[in-house]
Amino acid sequence: MRLSQLFTRTRKDHPADEAAKNAQLLIRAGFVHKEMAGVYSYLPLGLKVLNNISQIIREEMNAIGGQEILMPALQIKERYETTNRWDDKIVDNWFKTKLSNGSELGLGFSHEENLVPIVKNYINSYKDLPFAPYQIQTKFRNELRSKSGLMRGREFLMKDMYSFALTQQQHNGFYDQAQKAYRRIYDRVGIGDRTFMTFASGGSFSKFSHEFQTLSDAGEDTIYLSRAKNIAINKEVLTDEVLVEVGVSQADLEEVKGIETGNIFSLGTKFSGPFDLAVDDEAGNKQTVLMGCYGIGVSRVMGTVAELLSDDRGLVWPASIAPAKVYLARLGNIPSVVSAADELYEELTKLNIEVIYDDRDMRPGEKFADADLLGIPYRVVISEKTVRAGTFELKARTAKEAELLPKEELIKTLVS
Amino acid sequence: MRLSQLFTRTRKDHPADEAAKNAQLLIRAGFVHKEMAGVYSYLPLGLKVLNNISQIIREEMNAIGGQEILMPALQIKERYETTNRWDDKIVDNWFKTKLSNGSELGLGFSHEENLVPIVKNYINSYKDLPFAPYQIQTKFRNELRSKSGLMRGREFLMKDMYSFALTQQQHNGFYDQAQKAYRRIYDRVGIGDRTFMTFASGGSFSKFSHEFQTLSDAGEDTIYLSRAKNIAINKEVLTDEVLVEVGVSQADLEEVKGIETGNIFSLGTKFSGPFDLAVDDEAGNKQTVLMGCYGIGVSRVMGTVAELLSDDRGLVWPASIAPAKVYLARLGNIPSVVSAADELYEELTKLNIEVIYDDRDMRPGEKFADADLLGIPYRVVISEKTVRAGTFELKARTAKEAELLPKEELIKTLVS
Repeated sequence: MRLSQLFTRTRKDHPADEAAKNAQLLIRAGFVHKEMAGVYSYLPLGLKVLNNISQIIREEMNAIGGQEILMPALQIKERYETTNRWDDKIVDNWFKTKLSNGSELGLGFSHEENLVPIVKNYINSYKDLPFAPYQIQTKFRNELRSKSGLMRGREFLMKDMYSFALTQQQHNGFYDQAQKAYRRIYDRVGIGDRTFMTFASGGSFSKFSHEFQTLSDAGEDTIYLSRAKNIAINKEVLTDEVLVEVGVSQADLEEVKGIETGNIFSLGTKFSGPFDLAVDDEAGNKQTVLMGCYGIGVSRVMGTVAELLSDDRGLVWPASIAPAKVYLARLGNIPSVVSAADELYEELTKLNIEVIYDDRDMRPGEKFADADLLGIPYRVVISEKTVRAGTFELKARTAKEAELLPKEELIKTLVS
Repeated sequence: MRLSQLFTRTRKDHPADEAAKNAQLLIRAGFVHKEMAGVYSYLPLGLKVLNNISQIIREEMNAIGGQEILMPALQIKERYETTNRWDDKIVDNWFKTKLSNGSELGLGFSHEENLVPIVKNYINSYKDLPFAPYQIQTKFRNELRSKSGLMRGREFLMKDMYSFALTQQQHNGFYDQAQKAYRRIYDRVGIGDRTFMTFASGGSFSKFSHEFQTLSDAGEDTIYLSRAKNIAINKEVLTDEVLVEVGVSQADLEEVKGIETGNIFSLGTKFSGPFDLAVDDEAGNKQTVLMGCYGIGVSRVMGTVAELLSDDRGLVWPASIAPAKVYLARLGNIPSVVSAADELYEELTKLNIEVIYDDRDMRPGEKFADADLLGIPYRVVISEKTVRAGTFELKARTAKEAELLPKEELIKTLVS
């Protein structure tokens, strides 16, 4: 992509009401636009990051047998009355709306009540289990406050997967696979080293759920962590009994702040029961299906990476989710420089390396500042000097110094 | 994908309240689930079709310089008051909702009022023009009636592009490119031969807009068509004056029904004016930016193809948007048949050919009926007989007869 054609540009400032570092940086870099608290538009570079994260999640969900679907935002009141989740006193973050005929509708905050009636059409035997549909879809939550940028959205992109199993053993097997898939996701997006699976409240059908907490002072959750034992416990469930059960003592634990970037729940029959989702087992007896749910906030992960991996010069994207791998800065407009830069741009593009080509008429310092703010993994500089020397200047976003390389070596580095 | 693992299956029936042929077929085939009139969930096979159509549209928008973004559903009241589109008497299909603090919000039916304030942050000179952001995003329209299946959604997927230009000439140049891109889209999804660009009402800023009308008795619009001159006029603008202007006489025209699968509008300064979106021209004078908008209903296109290209046995997808290219029906479970089918499945998958592998324990007739209902372009049958003969049975969905081919020729046909 040629920067001269991109309609966004970097900004020196951010809206005065934007308090979160992740959103401040993403707004300054032109990745997102703030519409209101908790609601953002994704501009071309920001949408690329969001899509890259979605794709990693999709691959890991498919790898454990997930089947991608897409359910609507508009939700039918009666289904939530069935599970007692319609009342605003019980679910306090509904957005609600109405059909022209006056019927009330909700905007989906989660999709158990949407999916179970779908699944009922297709299963009747133990042979149909287990399976796990998932979607990457827009959720609506009417948060009273939303001050954490992309990390707490009123409208946000989420991956939600739901598993259906016959027996507890079958459920546990999938739950275990999902845990591992989540670990791979956090590793691949670059925050695996600071994300801990955390014991959290399990609700009425299991003792614990598991949150994935990414350590950050900007986090809204308090957790107790033993790095040595790789065990974390959300403050909300920390009791002496729980300490004994998970095998740590209070003294082993440090209090830290975390961002809940994902969570997985064993739901038991909480939703299958009310909708009578049952199948015949091998003996011909009806068994109510056991469910699990597995959530990860796609936009929240994007906000978390922006918040945690940035530095004082701007964003720092891991190559796996960066909007491009290379920021190609062309310094000056003399024909030899232009043709060398055009040539490299085409060469890298042919190799399927995404390049942001800064072909604008601007001072070098401005280009370098933009390359840093945008957080592109590699910056390549082409100038009169480099062309004369027959070299290219390469600098990784996280490196201190640039190096001068012949083209062959440059491309070898960028391809790897 | 192995059919034994897919959680959906075909059904003999459809909901009694579903009157539209496209939705009836898509429901019976397990592609979609009806939530309420005009609101559907996309199940694994249906989502693949929807994504394939989106990808074709994306490629054609990118080819004319479109820049993909993603704006939210939640819309700010004040912006629509600025353009006088908040009042339900003026826009009669709003879904509205409220923040916890009582502020009213709308659910986006179109995004001019969302995009113009974004763009205002980034442009100030004629040098910044032209450009055209677009999104593939969920729209909400509170239709009083919604009886046409996927062809008239209350919640539906739409591609909406908006162009920004300095001069009428610059605008016209892009508008012309967009027309051509639309033609390519209809050709690629398989309905180009029956889709006609149609003069329609232009609103306050241009004499005409252009609809893309796909001929169908199930269409809700009446248009007047001259096939010889490749000119179509929506009934709503058909006057003697218009006939003279576009150069046809009433006698040349046949009255037909059409589905409005896309439309493009010259907006002039209708939206840029109220938001004061202006740039300096070369002489340093402020010029209000000229806009165009370009819509195509992704889910509506899917419904239209389902409606028009199906036959009495079921759906008929063009290979470009089919959920898979090959339906591999394995007849029986004897080891030689299983291993031949497994082997072909792996071989085709390695060649990046999408295969629906019917490895279920079912009668041949049921498998053939499913292959037809699902509308997969090619059906390959492997049975004891074909294995013994060292051949494979191949039948195109639209062909009358199957043929027996050796593997090499089979693969040559499927790759092409």
